[in-house]
Amino acid sequence: MAKMIRKNYLMAPGPTPVPIDILLEGAKDTIHHRTPQFDRIFAEAVKGTKEVFRTENELFILASSGTGAMEMALTNIVNPGEKVIVCTVGKFGERWQEIAKAVGAEVALVSGEYGDFYTPEMVEKALKENPDAVAVFTTLSETSTGTVMDIEGISKVVKAAGKLIAVDGISGLVAEPCETDKWGLDIVVTGSQKGFMLPPGLAFISVSKAAIEKAQNTKTTSFYFNLKKYLKDPLPWTPAVNLIYQQRLAVEMLLKEGMENIWARHAVMGKATREAIKAMGLELFSKRPGNVLTSVKVPEGVPGGKIVSIMRDEYGVTIAGGQGTMKGNIFRIAHLGYMSDYDVVIALTALEKVLRKLGRHVEYGIGAQVAMEIFEKEGV
Amino acid sequence: MAKMIRKNYLMAPGPTPVPIDILLEGAKDTIHHRTPQFDRIFAEAVKGTKEVFRTENELFILASSGTGAMEMALTNIVNPGEKVIVCTVGKFGERWQEIAKAVGAEVALVSGEYGDFYTPEMVEKALKENPDAVAVFTTLSETSTGTVMDIEGISKVVKAAGKLIAVDGISGLVAEPCETDKWGLDIVVTGSQKGFMLPPGLAFISVSKAAIEKAQNTKTTSFYFNLKKYLKDPLPWTPAVNLIYQQRLAVEMLLKEGMENIWARHAVMGKATREAIKAMGLELFSKRPGNVLTSVKVPEGVPGGKIVSIMRDEYGVTIAGGQGTMKGNIFRIAHLGYMSDYDVVIALTALEKVLRKLGRHVEYGIGAQVAMEIFEKEGV
Repeated sequence: MAKMIRKNYLMAPGPTPVPIDILLEGAKDTIHHRTPQFDRIFAEAVKGTKEVFRTENELFILASSGTGAMEMALTNIVNPGEKVIVCTVGKFGERWQEIAKAVGAEVALVSGEYGDFYTPEMVEKALKENPDAVAVFTTLSETSTGTVMDIEGISKVVKAAGKLIAVDGISGLVAEPCETDKWGLDIVVTGSQKGFMLPPGLAFISVSKAAIEKAQNTKTTSFYFNLKKYLKDPLPWTPAVNLIYQQRLAVEMLLKEGMENIWARHAVMGKATREAIKAMGLELFSKRPGNVLTSVKVPEGVPGGKIVSIMRDEYGVTIAGGQGTMKGNIFRIAHLGYMSDYDVVIALTALEKVLRKLGRHVEYGIGAQVAMEIFEKEGV
Repeated sequence: MAKMIRKNYLMAPGPTPVPIDILLEGAKDTIHHRTPQFDRIFAEAVKGTKEVFRTENELFILASSGTGAMEMALTNIVNPGEKVIVCTVGKFGERWQEIAKAVGAEVALVSGEYGDFYTPEMVEKALKENPDAVAVFTTLSETSTGTVMDIEGISKVVKAAGKLIAVDGISGLVAEPCETDKWGLDIVVTGSQKGFMLPPGLAFISVSKAAIEKAQNTKTTSFYFNLKKYLKDPLPWTPAVNLIYQQRLAVEMLLKEGMENIWARHAVMGKATREAIKAMGLELFSKRPGNVLTSVKVPEGVPGGKIVSIMRDEYGVTIAGGQGTMKGNIFRIAHLGYMSDYDVVIALTALEKVLRKLGRHVEYGIGAQVAMEIFEKEGV
């Protein structure tokens, strides 16, 4: 009997696998941030990140997690007492709602069950019912359920109503198309540990002229995330220097691969995963699954919590369980960031292994067969 | 004629030199933060950081710069309209004041000129004049001037008045003695890129029981820095995983050296720098200089701005200039973090070189002579 060595297969929706070259880039000598030497590196990081965002808007790099960028988005364009429309079908939509409450904003909800999605029509109706709302807060990819929203369509109705739209692109950006300027997205936020292939610690926020105008008339109590300070000096506080080295390299790698190809790569990884899951007799949880992660219903009779812990602690493959009320009912497999066809096969194979261990019979190789046939058909 | 290679001599008060072992620790494989594997690393990092803080209080690790921790300190214990006493003799004292204003607190100032310091007596007087103040905000080492405050003495008068005390230990902690528990400090904050020898990106905050009690009755509008969330779950948002690997190793290195020795090492580095500066015929700027950095008045006839840029861009040694109104009038040499006697000699020698270049004659070797004699006398 042999035992396998424990490798780190990271297949949760963030942090995602960090390429070795990016890890080593972060090990470069730390330099001072108020120098022309750092200015050059920072300018390249910002320029590349703007290209990934598909925007010519202002873009700031924060030392924080993605939630910090969400707070920055909301608190800088919403005064206490002002009304906002928050769209939510999961934990991260709820986060917009919580931040709005903390600020003292009035919230009109567009909501649905976990796993469900909201439509441009639903947002349009909310805009008609709440003509005094100042902005709409949305999520590109709801990480808690793997659902992707039609942000292009939603932005159209928001723009038609003359309102601001903010998008949480934390897990979605890079993996899913997100055309910040073409779609007229006023604020887009994301974090470093998802599609950008970095360790966690940075967040990014793009801000349109209209959002900046609103911010000039907004009294934000936040100090660290005060947009007016960033507009005066994009480095108001000491930046996370080494993570910015890594971001500079990451955007260089992403732009070399090309955004269209990155989107296509994630689309086929998503499709292969979904089809293989169905072929194993399992059921998808999301009603509009995206290409960031696939959420799967825990099959009858299988202890849901154990799928994740056994895969991680015994088989070395880290996927994610359900969050909040979803705990034990779903599990989530990411195909996000620095991943290829073989990574999809690893996740599916480990899933077969754990299902067998937990008493549900699945033939070994179904996942690999279905996924690889799809990859081949798509010309991978 | 030969040219030197450009090495990175980082002698500014943050970021400070990062040991190669710590840089490489950050290049380790990123793992998921919601796992027992990460929990173990995180627990060790927190435990060691508490020992460096000399505290058994709650301690949280934030993904932010030190300013974020300052915002967390103030916004969680001060309601809008409540009064606070802010002590300030420089840019970072002023930062407490700005954060207090952003929150809508009423501010009573204990202040002095840049380069000056405040005393326990001055704080005692302010406490008597403002019996309705809820807390006193202080700075251990005012980075903009190199001044160290008598926090032990100040804390005594604050405690006698039954008020909370918060200390900005961002550049001071590690280099200067800071006995969080023994001195009764309710909140102490610091960042990773100073005495902790890490790249920037993390901040630390310790919080006493009394401060937590006050926080339970404080309505903070901050979401990312809401203490109540951290009390429920010390990792409410995705942590900066790789920086936490580095922090775990850094505190191991610091505790192996021993806090008393670290304080003594900084004390002799500070003394050697000050005496050498005086021997060069230059004048110290601070009236109570600490062992974190030495601020020096730009001598008559020397263009102050050029000292920093020539040292950095031509001689490869990064020191800091004056900030705000101090610009061009002072320069600041740090002896902070991962530094030894030879580093002090490098800074002093480069200073001699730049002064000669800018037309002020100094004999080469005065700095090395004075500093090394002090080191030898102190048994280094």
